[in-house]
Amino acid sequence: MKKRVLVLHGPNLNLLGLREPEIYGNFKLEDIDRELNQLAGELELELRVVQTNHEGELVEAIQKAREWANVIIINPAAYTHTSVAIPDALKAVGLPAIEVHLSNVYAREEFRHRSYLAGVVRGRILGFGPDSYYLALRAAQTLLSK
Amino acid sequence: MKKRVLVLHGPNLNLLGLREPEIYGNFKLEDIDRELNQLAGELELELRVVQTNHEGELVEAIQKAREWANVIIINPAAYTHTSVAIPDALKAVGLPAIEVHLSNVYAREEFRHRSYLAGVVRGRILGFGPDSYYLALRAAQTLLSK
Amino acid sequence: MKKRVLVLHGPNLNLLGLREPEIYGNFKLEDIDRELNQLAGELELELRVVQTNHEGELVEAIQKAREWANVIIINPAAYTHTSVAIPDALKAVGLPAIEVHLSNVYAREEFRHRSYLAGVVRGRILGFGPDSYYLALRAAQTLLSK
Amino acid sequence: MKKRVLVLHGPNLNLLGLREPEIYGNFKLEDIDRELNQLAGELELELRVVQTNHEGELVEAIQKAREWANVIIINPAAYTHTSVAIPDALKAVGLPAIEVHLSNVYAREEFRHRSYLAGVVRGRILGFGPDSYYLALRAAQTLLSK
Amino acid sequence: MKKRVLVLHGPNLNLLGLREPEIYGNFKLEDIDRELNQLAGELELELRVVQTNHEGELVEAIQKAREWANVIIINPAAYTHTSVAIPDALKAVGLPAIEVHLSNVYAREEFRHRSYLAGVVRGRILGFGPDSYYLALRAAQTLLSK
Amino acid sequence: MKKRVLVLHGPNLNLLGLREPEIYGNFKLEDIDRELNQLAGELELELRVVQTNHEGELVEAIQKAREWANVIIINPAAYTHTSVAIPDALKAVGLPAIEVHLSNVYAREEFRHRSYLAGVVRGRILGFGPDSYYLALRAAQTLLSK
Amino acid sequence: MKKRVLVLHGPNLNLLGLREPEIYGNFKLEDIDRELNQLAGELELELRVVQTNHEGELVEAIQKAREWANVIIINPAAYTHTSVAIPDALKAVGLPAIEVHLSNVYAREEFRHRSYLAGVVRGRILGFGPDSYYLALRAAQTLLSK
Amino acid sequence: MKKRVLVLHGPNLNLLGLREPEIYGNFKLEDIDRELNQLAGELELELRVVQTNHEGELVEAIQKAREWANVIIINPAAYTHTSVAIPDALKAVGLPAIEVHLSNVYAREEFRHRSYLAGVVRGRILGFGPDSYYLALRAAQTLLSK
Amino acid sequence: MKKRVLVLHGPNLNLLGLREPEIYGNFKLEDIDRELNQLAGELELELRVVQTNHEGELVEAIQKAREWANVIIINPAAYTHTSVAIPDALKAVGLPAIEVHLSNVYAREEFRHRSYLAGVVRGRILGFGPDSYYLALRAAQTLLSK
Amino acid sequence: MKKRVLVLHGPNLNLLGLREPEIYGNFKLEDIDRELNQLAGELELELRVVQTNHEGELVEAIQKAREWANVIIINPAAYTHTSVAIPDALKAVGLPAIEVHLSNVYAREEFRHRSYLAGVVRGRILGFGPDSYYLALRAAQTLLSK
Amino acid sequence: MKKRVLVLHGPNLNLLGLREPEIYGNFKLEDIDRELNQLAGELELELRVVQTNHEGELVEAIQKAREWANVIIINPAAYTHTSVAIPDALKAVGLPAIEVHLSNVYAREEFRHRSYLAGVVRGRILGFGPDSYYLALRAAQTLLSK
Amino acid sequence: MKKRVLVLHGPNLNLLGLREPEIYGNFKLEDIDRELNQLAGELELELRVVQTNHEGELVEAIQKAREWANVIIINPAAYTHTSVAIPDALKAVGLPAIEVHLSNVYAREEFRHRSYLAGVVRGRILGFGPDSYYLALRAAQTLLSK
Repeated sequence: MKKRVLVLHGPNLNLLGLREPEIYGNFKLEDIDRELNQLAGELELELRVVQTNHEGELVEAIQKAREWANVIIINPAAYTHTSVAIPDALKAVGLPAIEVHLSNVYAREEFRHRSYLAGVVRGRILGFGPDSYYLALRAAQTLLSK
Repeated sequence: MKKRVLVLHGPNLNLLGLREPEIYGNFKLEDIDRELNQLAGELELELRVVQTNHEGELVEAIQKAREWANVIIINPAAYTHTSVAIPDALKAVGLPAIEVHLSNVYAREEFRHRSYLAGVVRGRILGFGPDSYYLALRAAQTLLSK
Repeated sequence: MKKRVLVLHGPNLNLLGLREPEIYGNFKLEDIDRELNQLAGELELELRVVQTNHEGELVEAIQKAREWANVIIINPAAYTHTSVAIPDALKAVGLPAIEVHLSNVYAREEFRHRSYLAGVVRGRILGFGPDSYYLALRAAQTLLSK
Repeated sequence: MKKRVLVLHGPNLNLLGLREPEIYGNFKLEDIDRELNQLAGELELELRVVQTNHEGELVEAIQKAREWANVIIINPAAYTHTSVAIPDALKAVGLPAIEVHLSNVYAREEFRHRSYLAGVVRGRILGFGPDSYYLALRAAQTLLSK
Repeated sequence: MKKRVLVLHGPNLNLLGLREPEIYGNFKLEDIDRELNQLAGELELELRVVQTNHEGELVEAIQKAREWANVIIINPAAYTHTSVAIPDALKAVGLPAIEVHLSNVYAREEFRHRSYLAGVVRGRILGFGPDSYYLALRAAQTLLSK
Repeated sequence: MKKRVLVLHGPNLNLLGLREPEIYGNFKLEDIDRELNQLAGELELELRVVQTNHEGELVEAIQKAREWANVIIINPAAYTHTSVAIPDALKAVGLPAIEVHLSNVYAREEFRHRSYLAGVVRGRILGFGPDSYYLALRAAQTLLSK
Repeated sequence: MKKRVLVLHGPNLNLLGLREPEIYGNFKLEDIDRELNQLAGELELELRVVQTNHEGELVEAIQKAREWANVIIINPAAYTHTSVAIPDALKAVGLPAIEVHLSNVYAREEFRHRSYLAGVVRGRILGFGPDSYYLALRAAQTLLSK
Repeated sequence: MKKRVLVLHGPNLNLLGLREPEIYGNFKLEDIDRELNQLAGELELELRVVQTNHEGELVEAIQKAREWANVIIINPAAYTHTSVAIPDALKAVGLPAIEVHLSNVYAREEFRHRSYLAGVVRGRILGFGPDSYYLALRAAQTLLSK
Repeated sequence: MKKRVLVLHGPNLNLLGLREPEIYGNFKLEDIDRELNQLAGELELELRVVQTNHEGELVEAIQKAREWANVIIINPAAYTHTSVAIPDALKAVGLPAIEVHLSNVYAREEFRHRSYLAGVVRGRILGFGPDSYYLALRAAQTLLSK
Repeated sequence: MKKRVLVLHGPNLNLLGLREPEIYGNFKLEDIDRELNQLAGELELELRVVQTNHEGELVEAIQKAREWANVIIINPAAYTHTSVAIPDALKAVGLPAIEVHLSNVYAREEFRHRSYLAGVVRGRILGFGPDSYYLALRAAQTLLSK
Repeated sequence: MKKRVLVLHGPNLNLLGLREPEIYGNFKLEDIDRELNQLAGELELELRVVQTNHEGELVEAIQKAREWANVIIINPAAYTHTSVAIPDALKAVGLPAIEVHLSNVYAREEFRHRSYLAGVVRGRILGFGPDSYYLALRAAQTLLSK
Repeated sequence: MKKRVLVLHGPNLNLLGLREPEIYGNFKLEDIDRELNQLAGELELELRVVQTNHEGELVEAIQKAREWANVIIINPAAYTHTSVAIPDALKAVGLPAIEVHLSNVYAREEFRHRSYLAGVVRGRILGFGPDSYYLALRAAQTLLSK
């Protein structure tokens, strides 16, 4: 049976392509999702993708992942820097998680360097634009094949 | 007429029993709620219980308590450490509140020691597992009987 | 064609008139909204007003403003001090915004002095009670007439 | 055989009723002790109570508890914020301890928020006036009955 | 009798139009003063304007305002971030004051976010260029009409 | 009836004359006490003097002062920088207190600048060697004569 | 020949009696000066008094004191917390100085606890209202008589 | 012509397999290098690998990369947290760089969270053990193919 | 005549062997004292040993050492991190002192790294269990033989 | 036509030769000015020199330099560490400036290391006594000759 | 077979006897090494000594110790306060280490109190001049004989 | 005999002209060295120049300077902000040193403001590009001629 990966996009990522293109590029979220689905096919992974602007919904998407997913890829965007509920949810469900960022948050404002999540995930991939996601999917596959 | 107590469970508490049992134990949230109801009966208190993973819904549950409750017992979980909106709501409705935690947050990560809520509640009970709630219910009854 | 202004009221502002009157006064939110509408008429501005207690809904109201508004007036209340998602949304939509507070937050608790939003808005008006909003509407009109 | 509880009152608690009544109320320490003894009778617990203004005597009272008590209830008052010797003693004797405060220390000066003890005790109850002690005695009984 | 407003311009504001036009714009201080006088006429306010580069002269202008003004509008410029004497003077004379800045100081260097004055004034208006002053004059009129 | 003044000397002051003479001078504690008694006679004050090296005994000397003294002069020495119990005792007994130091603590190590006591006393006199005490006695007399 | 004492009053002290009477009392600066002159007569000291609201003038008054004074009594008021130039001037002229405050600055805002001056003066007297000055004059006389 | 990738291993990585296996696993550095070479073949990249325990040699390896490499993959190990010279070298040569860590440094000691390098590289991949390197090689290839 | 060494054991060291054996080992304080006495015999040193849980008694033991000891070996235990009175006493008596700890305090909680004493003693030996004391006795002998 | 250099001496520099000779040496300000004038002659520069103890006058001297000087050499002395108005003035006039200090401020008190000016000037020369000025004049000439 | 001890001297220790004799004394490094060798003979230990000024060479000396030494004595000198690579190397090789300093670093500049190494070594001996080394050698022997 | 000056160039300075020309300009290190040699000739100074990217080699170059140089000019580049070994070496050899930077480090990132070296050198010259070196050579000559 295929392994299952949940991809979570956090707040404002639905504006991708519209938002600060000098930081985030011109591609749209559906472009990323399309490429993710194609790569998932190649890697023989089953994929679900959720985007939400609500911290509580990210918490609940993680909670529900217990019953379905084998690994979580999450780009928590702004909630990276302010949420304790999201890392608590990840610890509660106990699934391995991979944190992803489009931009290199360490080349931006000081407050984007702080994260309660960073110590809870298995690994982090950041700064490669949409490729951050594709690399994360490959990392997920490797984790699952061990 | 019976005094009325609102019990609020914050994010991820719905996973109780599943989540990090070495910290939170094996009991489930419905076990706590059942015991709370039974104790409320003994203490002749009316009880309502709400669980939510959304900061905004905790705010609104507190706001609505103005029309019904005499005291609020709240376990804000992760929002303890990040929310200003919840203590603002408590100050706005002006009801006495009791903060409850299952674990001793001071024996855990540094960031769990910070709380905007702590100075707004009447009292705090923490570290006794589910008993934190039952002690809070007794504390509520004593407050209401004065 | 009339210029369009979106007014966003953050958490607990729906309790205005009930909440800490020594800080916030006795007027209600609908009083402010009525006066705002009247002044908008005088200034020949079109107005929409939203109140919500959810950070995610503020984010989405800002996102939707892209298709309608020319300027945003926002009183983020408690989220001023804890949200990164709201300033991220404002930067993403690229509309000029004006931050408004009823009270002078700098005469209150230390944690109310911090704001991730402050550096993202065009200007800030605070401490004048409901007049903060009316002055902001005038400021919006001046911005739009340039 | 009855379970045994040691109650420790720290510095200045002997002035209760005289000291800042707007914070600490009008009851005296002997009032609390009388009620504690009565409740201990109801809960079938044996009780010893010690008050001292000396950090070293608190340390030694805890050390001696090894030979007698099953649980310690301690209100370390001012030493909460300055003592390392008291938490070291608690760790050394290895008995479960419950920290108690009459007032909500988090609603007072910043330096009263700091505590080396907080992470060492089993649980904390604070802000309920004398009821903090009675709730702690109930909590002790529950701990001992497990 | 007409209400009286004192407007205080702090250090380097006499260079307006010459100084960093990308931050402060091209208008000159006399342009602002002319518009302020015209608006004061419309609002039926009496106006006096002082510009000085000396902290001590700002202190003394505030002190003298006791005998003449009903409200003070002050742009303390650089002294915002370094002066205790100016807020002390404002507290001493007891007149309501409105703090004004041309630029949004929160979008600039970190040290421009600190202010001893901010908690002493009635309200703050910042980021609207010269309009910050005109909005402040309107705010002053509203304050005085209550 | 004569007004009564309690003078408290904290830890290591009994070594005066032996201890770091370049900081504390060559006089002994009994020299200071003799001069204090003589000045008390001139000022028609009754005097009691206590020296102790124990924090707890300073606390108890303050507590007992309730029944006898009208004002307390205290040189808490090292406990200035580490004790919360001493300022708590002063607040509990409610007597006016004057803090005295032989040396100018602000010209010494950084940690000697911190004090929980400083905000609790009526006034502070420091840096004048033994004269700090004599000036404090005069200050006490003036306080008592009002 | 009589010893000579320069008394320096810093900013806003000319408003004494008008300014925040709950902190500073009802007496005026000329009341203090009159009493200081009378006490100087008793102590056989020559006295000069200067009040200024300008940091630079305080610096220059200290510089000129080289040619006339034997000791300086200074209440730097707000400049206590912000000036480096004043302590630099005191070190430059090398005269012993006594720092005086009417109120206990340690019972007020945090920023009033900081002082670059504190480590430069011989001694400090604070919290006794106008008596702070009279005690300082006595301290000055004792210093000069050694 | 094949694109060229320089892989830099920092201090103590030559001990891999010997060092703290619970953190770093049992594989050796030559295992990683062998797999990297194989993957480079698949991806049609030319590879050079350097390991050194000297900060200065890392600086010089980066400097020399100007003449040969198209991208640098660097695991600076301990120098991540202490070196400014390494990020300065990367900025000086102007080549895109990818930072790699075997372990999730954010799940370890606080001092391992600090990095002067993080803001200088194009992207970061960490926490996947040896896979961190292989993912970085893929990321490098994608960067080079744009 | 034999040189004389005073050994001071601070709070909770009387519990040695009972207290956290994974940190402090299984030996008892009398075991250490016996070995110290034997080694003192070999090194031709006279020895006195004091254990106390009271900060004030440590202060007084140090004070009395003036009349007897040539060097002091002190394990201040918990008072290392909170006492100013103890280093003040050591400076006052002017005897060389050696600070000793059984455990490596730098491998434990952050607050155990702070010490007012560390800069006052001649040297420090820590982390060797009971050997810390024996090494200190050798160090004392070497100091005394110079 | 000769290039023009304005030299600004800040507070207390008029006391040079009198003030702390172990730090500042025995030369007087007029000695420096004489040598500066002689060197200016050699370098074919026109020179004006201003000394003032007032922050506001330094601001105004900088403002007036717009009409005359090509470069400013400034020793802001104590105002280095406290003034924002002076760097604001320098940015406003847009002239290149060179900061000069007689002593090495980094070998003195911590608070002398802070400077709002340091990031605004073109270059800094410090620690060479009067030579700091002469080197700055040479640096000015080089700047002007480019 | 004899146990083997590696002694590592860090940067600038080769200058001993030349460098700041008021802190480090007049003896030279070869004097220390000679005495160490003699004591090693007495204690029946085999000894190797390395001095280097390079962080990387200290790292590699520690790495090579895996194949030869039973314990490491290290005086990391300046690298104590800046190196992460050295403690990483010690953890990697897993040998017990003893940290040694000639001077009491806690009686010197603040930055000499920080150490990444302190928590990684078995024990620390500091402040006894060359005796620090000899005591460490005895400590090593005791460790090895267990 | 000619006085001798050692010039030390730190890490990455060998890339000058290639590295970030908007900060460092287009000149190369050999251009600076050529001009330094020419100026040394004019000033009748003997010159040696060393460039290295290794902290340890800078330490050793300073150590060797004891036998040859009269003064050291050092641009420690990145090691300015991270090295304790370099200032330790300078203190050990006791030669006067002059710190040089091409750019104004105070106009760059925050971490470039910190320096352990700054308080150890005689003087600092920074921000003048290559002229920083030439001014330093003049400063060196003046120092040596005294």
